[in-house]
Amino acid sequence: MTASADNITWHEHSVSNEERSSLNGHGRALIWFTGLSGAGKSTIANAVDFKLHQRRVHSYLLDGDNVRHGLNSNLGFSEPDRIENIRRIGEVGKLLVDAGLIVCSAFISPYRRDRESIRDLLPAGQFIEVFVKASLETCELRDPKGLYKKARAGEIVNFTGIDAPYEIPDKPEIVLDSDLFNVEQLAEEVLRFLSARGLLATE
Amino acid sequence: MTASADNITWHEHSVSNEERSSLNGHGRALIWFTGLSGAGKSTIANAVDFKLHQRRVHSYLLDGDNVRHGLNSNLGFSEPDRIENIRRIGEVGKLLVDAGLIVCSAFISPYRRDRESIRDLLPAGQFIEVFVKASLETCELRDPKGLYKKARAGEIVNFTGIDAPYEIPDKPEIVLDSDLFNVEQLAEEVLRFLSARGLLATE
Repeated sequence: MTASADNITWHEHSVSNEERSSLNGHGRALIWFTGLSGAGKSTIANAVDFKLHQRRVHSYLLDGDNVRHGLNSNLGFSEPDRIENIRRIGEVGKLLVDAGLIVCSAFISPYRRDRESIRDLLPAGQFIEVFVKASLETCELRDPKGLYKKARAGEIVNFTGIDAPYEIPDKPEIVLDSDLFNVEQLAEEVLRFLSARGLLATE
Repeated sequence: MTASADNITWHEHSVSNEERSSLNGHGRALIWFTGLSGAGKSTIANAVDFKLHQRRVHSYLLDGDNVRHGLNSNLGFSEPDRIENIRRIGEVGKLLVDAGLIVCSAFISPYRRDRESIRDLLPAGQFIEVFVKASLETCELRDPKGLYKKARAGEIVNFTGIDAPYEIPDKPEIVLDSDLFNVEQLAEEVLRFLSARGLLATE
């Protein structure tokens, strides 16, 4: 073998997950907020991300804003596309967690099967399903993007909660009741859970 | 508006990119290693990731190992699939950089247009194209996965460098000559570039 053929050997090891976490000083997880449109997923996820950052935890937020126009810009709203949408988000969440982050992800993700597939992607304990619970009435009243109005008028079809199902999680790690509590209270509930799990070791 | 409808308002701001970088103590970038199979992309990218970690830089490595069987598991080797493969990797790289990391990505990515599309996704200065240069003769001699042998035997078609083109970068930020230098030397060259760019402020 000539010298140039030998140039691409390397005897150091790769950076392990433990080493990335050790640099960060805390654990890693994908916090998966699921629930109806208007339940408060994005707002609570953003508040958790903000609070994690304040505690010097390396966090990231995945939501429609940074996924829909980028990675998933070539997907529509057909059933296969909706499944692929959630699958890709799960895979990206896994990579971000692999990099050592605590990731908050906020998507309706109405089907149990799709959410369970993502749980199965991650090592045990690193997928934290958070059911953001709010009555359909409350969500329709909030209607932050005017989507319920359009769905009721028939301008949008297959809208979760109106003419498409939402499958309530069987055993979510956390249930947040946004009919009863505000964002501050609910975000703190998530932080308490993470702390009890030992994921916020820098605090 | 009832109390429960008001529950999902939140007055804190989101975590900005500057705040994420400030927590890390260094800059962010997508280092895009491109070149023939066997040129040394993955090995050098791994060495750079390792050296960054040793300097307490929050880094991550994207390569076939963590992308092919996950995010891109539903893609084959047709031309549209190859384009989509690189597009998704670029989008994921963008998200990882958005999270504040310095990301090393190692894929043949033979077409200029595809690489330029990824450059365009990122803010100026955050895409660093690294051409890992090695003669076809050297790569065939190394043939770490036995792929050149298969391509020459006609068992693989559309193999870059044999019966599919590789478009050399026009203006890469860095050219690494793996015919002449070894992994240690080439990885240090990348680190020097990042340092000169002010991206390793923790050192």
